[in-house]
Amino acid sequence: MGIITLTTDFGLEDYHVAALKGAIYSQISDIIIVDISHQIMPFDLIQTAYIIQNSYKNFPKGTIHVIGVDALPSPFVKSIAAEINGHFFICNDNGILSLIAEEYIPDQVYEITINKYDDLHFLTKDLFIPVACHLARGGKIELIGRKINSYKELTQPKPVEKSEDNSITGMIIHVDNFGNAITNITKEQFHQFGKKKNFIIFARNVQFTEIKSKYTDVLGTDPDEKKYHGKAFAIFNSAGYLQISMYKSNLKTVGGASSLMGLYIGTNVRVVFT
Amino acid sequence: MGIITLTTDFGLEDYHVAALKGAIYSQISDIIIVDISHQIMPFDLIQTAYIIQNSYKNFPKGTIHVIGVDALPSPFVKSIAAEINGHFFICNDNGILSLIAEEYIPDQVYEITINKYDDLHFLTKDLFIPVACHLARGGKIELIGRKINSYKELTQPKPVEKSEDNSITGMIIHVDNFGNAITNITKEQFHQFGKKKNFIIFARNVQFTEIKSKYTDVLGTDPDEKKYHGKAFAIFNSAGYLQISMYKSNLKTVGGASSLMGLYIGTNVRVVFT
Amino acid sequence: MGIITLTTDFGLEDYHVAALKGAIYSQISDIIIVDISHQIMPFDLIQTAYIIQNSYKNFPKGTIHVIGVDALPSPFVKSIAAEINGHFFICNDNGILSLIAEEYIPDQVYEITINKYDDLHFLTKDLFIPVACHLARGGKIELIGRKINSYKELTQPKPVEKSEDNSITGMIIHVDNFGNAITNITKEQFHQFGKKKNFIIFARNVQFTEIKSKYTDVLGTDPDEKKYHGKAFAIFNSAGYLQISMYKSNLKTVGGASSLMGLYIGTNVRVVFT
Repeated sequence: MGIITLTTDFGLEDYHVAALKGAIYSQISDIIIVDISHQIMPFDLIQTAYIIQNSYKNFPKGTIHVIGVDALPSPFVKSIAAEINGHFFICNDNGILSLIAEEYIPDQVYEITINKYDDLHFLTKDLFIPVACHLARGGKIELIGRKINSYKELTQPKPVEKSEDNSITGMIIHVDNFGNAITNITKEQFHQFGKKKNFIIFARNVQFTEIKSKYTDVLGTDPDEKKYHGKAFAIFNSAGYLQISMYKSNLKTVGGASSLMGLYIGTNVRVVFT
Repeated sequence: MGIITLTTDFGLEDYHVAALKGAIYSQISDIIIVDISHQIMPFDLIQTAYIIQNSYKNFPKGTIHVIGVDALPSPFVKSIAAEINGHFFICNDNGILSLIAEEYIPDQVYEITINKYDDLHFLTKDLFIPVACHLARGGKIELIGRKINSYKELTQPKPVEKSEDNSITGMIIHVDNFGNAITNITKEQFHQFGKKKNFIIFARNVQFTEIKSKYTDVLGTDPDEKKYHGKAFAIFNSAGYLQISMYKSNLKTVGGASSLMGLYIGTNVRVVFT
Repeated sequence: MGIITLTTDFGLEDYHVAALKGAIYSQISDIIIVDISHQIMPFDLIQTAYIIQNSYKNFPKGTIHVIGVDALPSPFVKSIAAEINGHFFICNDNGILSLIAEEYIPDQVYEITINKYDDLHFLTKDLFIPVACHLARGGKIELIGRKINSYKELTQPKPVEKSEDNSITGMIIHVDNFGNAITNITKEQFHQFGKKKNFIIFARNVQFTEIKSKYTDVLGTDPDEKKYHGKAFAIFNSAGYLQISMYKSNLKTVGGASSLMGLYIGTNVRVVFT
């Protein structure tokens, strides 16, 4: 059975997500639909890319990912479908594809031309879903439009490396459900630039001189883990990003790393190697 | 495979929705379950009808829609199942059926009599799910009870047309995830009453003299869309309602049409044709 | 088709839940995945147990329940899989199993030893999902590790029975989506201890001398139910717990039993039999 995933900023309190699913099942009954998230911040392509990049590779090759974020029918914006790393992505050409394609270059990108602009109102449902169902039935991507060689490039702020003072300055790009503050500095960049030197991480008023590789490394050899609740530390998270955490903190009650240390999206985090 | 949809006010933080799904799969494994929404405002039949009316038609004919809103076992309220426009609806006779059936008259309505009142506690699970599974297996609706000819009528406030001053006065009936304020004035009514005359739409302190048919119509022929972020306009939305919007506004940060223009559920919106 | 359920504290705004589902479908396509809840309060095992205990029995025997709450890879905490009442549970040995197993003693418990600690980062995905898929394919539980005879015991506060003054003192353990305040006193305990005597329930400033068995019992023989909106009463809920409710109250607008009577998690509720 094919799989279609849905990522939107529609929320779960309205009829739009159900309308998409109904439209899929009306065209193809033998299909698995998976919600990636419908709680993307409205029009936020950076967050969309973060969520999709860190989830899509877990799905089998051939999975079709529909992205209903910033997907308005427009005379100025193409709708596109692309194959990247064995997966299909259907979205507007608003820059999201370039963000998703940071790691793998698209094998092919098509402008969707099967639509008549005037008939499109709810673009994700009226255009992306028929294309997704076409692909899910094994239809060729060539049939949905014409091949294009470029698409809108959007760039995320990247960590800045300075050899003068041996530093990398990144920023918080995401705060998760536990209040963990995730930077855009990857483990790979950290090690390549830092070459195993000592370092100090400056995250607003707090400094760290080591990076854990697991949450429970905070405990060291002490099995009495309750003592460590609320302890701040740096860690490379499971997605490979440098992250500032507090052991078993709770954003909804006592606060988490983000709220207690003032680390919000956009806050700088600086690493100085010594 | 049959499809059962679920619409409830149970929320996603409790065990109730999972209990419904477990109960379905215990009776029938070869079934697709789709959540319409579980975040209906408690007991809100108007919102329930809005969500269902705008999503159900996307599903294939024969889909079974279970409505667990205001569904308490009661000696004073019948439980019913109805066929409308090729779809099945299972709910309490609390008026929701009349709201859903505004557009299509039910082909048949049955009072569910297979239950013994004393055994019912969690009505949606204990009664609606067995009926839904019966229908999903191809069972006849006649077997669940006895045919009835009337059901509770509930009326929504309708826009008031006044020929004296050539006006329609409707109200905001829904605010969506983006802050769009949706009125109960339909495109059809607007055109029938207005007969292509000029008009002014009064939405609290703001006036509009045209209605867009797509969000990006706001841009006109100008591709520099950033300039238009936050611009207010009126539009017929994809469900066919007159809606007051702000281009790419964000209810969660800077505010949306609803919060910035003071357009909440119940706020009047008046159209005067000139 | 097998069923795997997911219960986590990951929330719905991040990539983690989708990553789990992708990982499952990558290993086994012919499977049903059901979300129990992903909105568990971070690390809250008591809430996790409440949600799972009241939902799991609705699923068919053989269902596999993955519990991604307080599931960090740790040298001090085993990962385990257990069979209870015909269902499988996969979790960390953090005490959650003992809470779930209050009613039925596990038939068998295995420590999962197929993992290499250093390879585990996102434990629920990297370890629990492969075990779940193994079981879903009909694999034997014996193959995942070694049988163990004990697991971490965690005890919930139980209602205190006092024969001196004929009282049971319990506490609120859950507040649901409607504001109902649910105690840890069960119908069974109530009747066993109370032996059909008269009683007074003290819930902060409010007292009740009877317990309804259905919400609509509040109406008695009066079909004019609107009069009873907001009326406070005690009820044995569908899960069998003593619960303090307000008829058709709305936590999100006017308030519910919890907010209006000051009944929060941890608040004592005392029953005195006379």
